Amino acid sequence: MTDSAPAPGVVDLLGVLAYAELTAFLRMAEDAALLAPSLTDRAALGDLAAMEYGHFRMLRDRLASLGADPEEAMAPFVDAIDAWHAQTKPRDWHEALVKAYVGTGVAGDFYREIARRAEPAIRGLVDEVLADESRSEFAVERVRTAIEADPRLSGRLALWARRMVGEALSQGQRLAAARPELAAMLVGDEEGEDLAEIGRLFARLTEEHGKRMAAIGLTPGP
Amino acid sequence: MTDSAPAPGVVDLLGVLAYAELTAFLRMAEDAALLAPSLTDRAALGDLAAMEYGHFRMLRDRLASLGADPEEAMAPFVDAIDAWHAQTKPRDWHEALVKAYVGTGVAGDFYREIARRAEPAIRGLVDEVLADESRSEFAVERVRTAIEADPRLSGRLALWARRMVGEALSQGQRLAAARPELAAMLVGDEEGEDLAEIGRLFARLTEEHGKRMAAIGLTPGP
Repeated sequence: MTDSAPAPGVVDLLGVLAYAELTAFLRMAEDAALLAPSLTDRAALGDLAAMEYGHFRMLRDRLASLGADPEEAMAPFVDAIDAWHAQTKPRDWHEALVKAYVGTGVAGDFYREIARRAEPAIRGLVDEVLADESRSEFAVERVRTAIEADPRLSGRLALWARRMVGEALSQGQRLAAARPELAAMLVGDEEGEDLAEIGRLFARLTEEHGKRMAAIGLTPGP
Repeated sequence: MTDSAPAPGVVDLLGVLAYAELTAFLRMAEDAALLAPSLTDRAALGDLAAMEYGHFRMLRDRLASLGADPEEAMAPFVDAIDAWHAQTKPRDWHEALVKAYVGTGVAGDFYREIARRAEPAIRGLVDEVLADESRSEFAVERVRTAIEADPRLSGRLALWARRMVGEALSQGQRLAAARPELAAMLVGDEEGEDLAEIGRLFARLTEEHGKRMAAIGLTPGP
């Protein structure tokens, strides 16, 4: 099925999300294989990884139905996303859990932002993705329990989370500068409005991130 | 839901398959992330990896419904399966493809053997797994094309496939010796019958493996 030509930026948007989900799937699977302390934990992170794969497939199918080549649509975002993962490689199981929870959470916020201005056909896809979101909750309980047992973990993991978000913002800014149509999908493109809207977008993302940090037992960053 | 107590060996059987599928999922995801030459290839192997995860989940749910703890059921098989993967780590994309195809194929043969003598409740699970089997076919086309372009690949990949099967048989024999109830699930346990039946089982597995080697463009081993 081929729909009518997509709005500018839509292929970029689906492309960046598709590559983000594909990579999250593969990296989480790697973390599960290398870092999980028990088979139950390995299966739980594997479950989350498989969910990300499901999201990738929805996005890829949507790209194909728009007449876009999924590989071409993902290609411009490979370097930024690979660089983010290279800079945020977990060194232990708790870092892997925080990464899974924060990563899934930030991705969810991203999908919500898209839903704010997306056409209805895209919104259905966003709803499907968000319906899965609670599956990262297992990480919350594991990390909270670990911090209760060893309170010194809290400071190290809070720094870790802040670093992941910092790296994500810096890669995101690089991408937004390189792909103006993509940025316009998220913040609108009316002259003069975009700076204020970018400010509000960052404020919302930061607020949601702070809530997740508190939920997982880590003090929100400054 | 808890069914009546399972037959001896059933928990072992579901346990070894569950750990094999969980590990296949995670290792294939790793191979996809590290070795795929294009995003399309990465997604194709990722697709196969996600399918293995689906099988793992079916097996885990079945164990739980039998009142067994999935982690305990998998634990006796961790060393053998991890050892197999450590000895069969692909060094390039073509080795990864052959591993995916041969591994999925041997696993399918295994499920077919189980179906030969399993109770009906287990047979439904086997059918679901076998329905997915054609998804590894993409590997056949990729490897055949690569061998046509570079015929020297054929000898190296044939050796690679033979090594994987050799390692699998040696791990399998270790497991069968350590878990007699599991072996009995596959070959029957009537006095005097088992040796002949083991011979027939090996003959069937070898024959199917030979067919797959021919399909993928590799000469079957001696």
